[in-house]
Amino acid sequence: MTEKRAALLIVLDGAGDRRVDELGGETPFEAADTPHLDEIAAEGQTGLMNVIGYGQTPGSDTAHLSLFGYDPEHHYPGRGPLEALGAGLDSRPGDVAFRSNFATVTEDLIVEDRRAGRDISPEEGAVLQERIDGMVIEDVSVRFVHTTEHRGALVLRGPDLSADIGDVDPHETGKKILTCEAYSPEAEKTARIVNKFVSMSNRLLKDLELNKKRVERGMPPANIILLRGPGKHEDIPTIKKRYGIESAVIAGGALYIGTAKYVGMDHIKVKGQTGTIETNFDGIAEKTIECIESGYDYIFLHIKATDNASHDHNAAEKVLAIEKSDAMIGKILEKVGNRLVVLATADHCTPVSVGEHTCDPVPVALYADFIRPDDVKRLSEFDAAHGALGMLKGSDVMPLLLGYAGHIEKYGA
Amino acid sequence: MTEKRAALLIVLDGAGDRRVDELGGETPFEAADTPHLDEIAAEGQTGLMNVIGYGQTPGSDTAHLSLFGYDPEHHYPGRGPLEALGAGLDSRPGDVAFRSNFATVTEDLIVEDRRAGRDISPEEGAVLQERIDGMVIEDVSVRFVHTTEHRGALVLRGPDLSADIGDVDPHETGKKILTCEAYSPEAEKTARIVNKFVSMSNRLLKDLELNKKRVERGMPPANIILLRGPGKHEDIPTIKKRYGIESAVIAGGALYIGTAKYVGMDHIKVKGQTGTIETNFDGIAEKTIECIESGYDYIFLHIKATDNASHDHNAAEKVLAIEKSDAMIGKILEKVGNRLVVLATADHCTPVSVGEHTCDPVPVALYADFIRPDDVKRLSEFDAAHGALGMLKGSDVMPLLLGYAGHIEKYGA
Repeated sequence: MTEKRAALLIVLDGAGDRRVDELGGETPFEAADTPHLDEIAAEGQTGLMNVIGYGQTPGSDTAHLSLFGYDPEHHYPGRGPLEALGAGLDSRPGDVAFRSNFATVTEDLIVEDRRAGRDISPEEGAVLQERIDGMVIEDVSVRFVHTTEHRGALVLRGPDLSADIGDVDPHETGKKILTCEAYSPEAEKTARIVNKFVSMSNRLLKDLELNKKRVERGMPPANIILLRGPGKHEDIPTIKKRYGIESAVIAGGALYIGTAKYVGMDHIKVKGQTGTIETNFDGIAEKTIECIESGYDYIFLHIKATDNASHDHNAAEKVLAIEKSDAMIGKILEKVGNRLVVLATADHCTPVSVGEHTCDPVPVALYADFIRPDDVKRLSEFDAAHGALGMLKGSDVMPLLLGYAGHIEKYGA
Repeated sequence: MTEKRAALLIVLDGAGDRRVDELGGETPFEAADTPHLDEIAAEGQTGLMNVIGYGQTPGSDTAHLSLFGYDPEHHYPGRGPLEALGAGLDSRPGDVAFRSNFATVTEDLIVEDRRAGRDISPEEGAVLQERIDGMVIEDVSVRFVHTTEHRGALVLRGPDLSADIGDVDPHETGKKILTCEAYSPEAEKTARIVNKFVSMSNRLLKDLELNKKRVERGMPPANIILLRGPGKHEDIPTIKKRYGIESAVIAGGALYIGTAKYVGMDHIKVKGQTGTIETNFDGIAEKTIECIESGYDYIFLHIKATDNASHDHNAAEKVLAIEKSDAMIGKILEKVGNRLVVLATADHCTPVSVGEHTCDPVPVALYADFIRPDDVKRLSEFDAAHGALGMLKGSDVMPLLLGYAGHIEKYGA
């Protein structure tokens, strides 16, 4: 009888790379000392993966949707719902959500600073948020949350909403904010609500004491909210519905949490978890073990530090982030390795020489103590090219993990 | 001009495996002495195959449809037509077919034994069959055949039949048999016919002398027929229609014969062919050679013994079954090897440690005396991971075989 196991997907964000001069021509995976990743490569199967397809550079959102088994062509809701969920807002099927910026406009709604100086403090953010969150426009309720600096997220809830609308941000200073346009008749209501919201945000914020003080300090007032990245929260089949399993996300970045929540994962918080190399690797390992022991069938564990180092062209920090991740993986394997099927990979390559996502395939290692190992002895872009998994697509990850973990029923009889 | 050859697909059912402790950590393919399979691996090309897809555990029916080039998502008719064809019943497009059980019910149609004690002898089966086969209900004719123990198959033929119906078997003793429900208006007639059939089967069987004798011997009477696995025989394009070739199946198990017949293969009987290790391997080899010499373009040769040993967790018997299959393959190659394109594989893995189908990929060897060999020298799960074929899907098998055998026309000019 097929034994059921927990499936653990470990994503080291942007960890895939090319040859790096500062590393003597090695990739960060090669240069890093990674006994545990190498062990799962040696005892398991390896391969390369085009998360989207050959030559396709994945975005973070589309990459993760693919890794979770959701074709982004059909299931990408736009950035708004993913960011809103990641920011802790309640978003549900039927809602339309946005990313937002605090910005600075003149009396005539000419944009002076698209980010209101960027430096909105958490304290200021809380005051601004309090003024906006909970508004009702016609029959639509507005939930708003400040996240970091000038950024926030917003959810509209009400009947007959649509994300088929245009922008309000002119994307240039010195220009007047745009009237949100409906791109289809069904979106006319939403465009009207957005226009009312933007105008109301200006009326509600411009005379705040907080903004007077900002101006006194020579800083641009946060006197309007510009919305972007509209997306409709669709009624997609959740992971639970598809596979009948309980799933959880352990991640530091809002987008990854939001994308995981969008497909129905529980967000498990870890004290001190951030998107940086200072994140609480030990705490993440402990919480992952706890999730496995408490009966979660599938855990998505995301480390962002590798990608940040890549964007900063910082090879040494990328190596360090991989090594810290490896130690974290070692702790998990030591405790619950014989109860797991593990797949470790990256969502895309962010070569330190480039500093941006590229289309290079990422290495993959798949491990369970019963799996047939291939001949590859360590996890790297070059080694994994010889692995028994061959060339995977992002959409293969979920079936591979859940198939070996015994959570997918036999197809046919 | 491309020489036309016969294509031979050899499926060792469930033969793929994982490391087996009793075999010193080898797989049965590795542990078995298989000079002929190794020769086709060495002189040909190898690879691994996810018959359905990464992480997907194939059923026997869906696996074979895929190997024959029919996407089970579109062409799986349900188990009924496949079993009926395999049992030798004539099933045609438009028919609705079922698997059936003889069962024991009370006067009030309460199920006492869902399998009527299991032990229906061939002689009893013949009497019961004679009573049922040939019935006509409204404008629908009923063909019925007893197969093994309590099992049988049934085909309904008439206008406007549908398989979109519910069950009659309550799947529990002590419960009354269910009224077959139509799940759509088009299925109302079929549901009515099924209900009439079940009720008539009870009236026709309950007072049989045979059943009185069973009761006297303390055995449950076979006094009703319960139907399950309804499926409509769809008008699918046959292999002949698709490729213009003559195809044949040589197999011991009803399901494999039925699936092959469903896509249009002729069933070639071999005396003494069974699903066990006692099957007539020599006779199978001889008949296969005969088929090739008599002009069949494509032969599907199926050995079930490997899977039976796997389900029984019997590593030694699995090794033996592979070795006997290898000797059989040697006989075929010796005689007609230079007139063939051969693909040897399994339909799925059934690891002896698990005893059930799993999602592990299966090894594949493709051989023709003109093909470019790769570096792999023997057929096993580990060796084939290095093969030139890479990672195949089940749907690649038919084009590969028929392409090299010269039966697929150039695509374009």
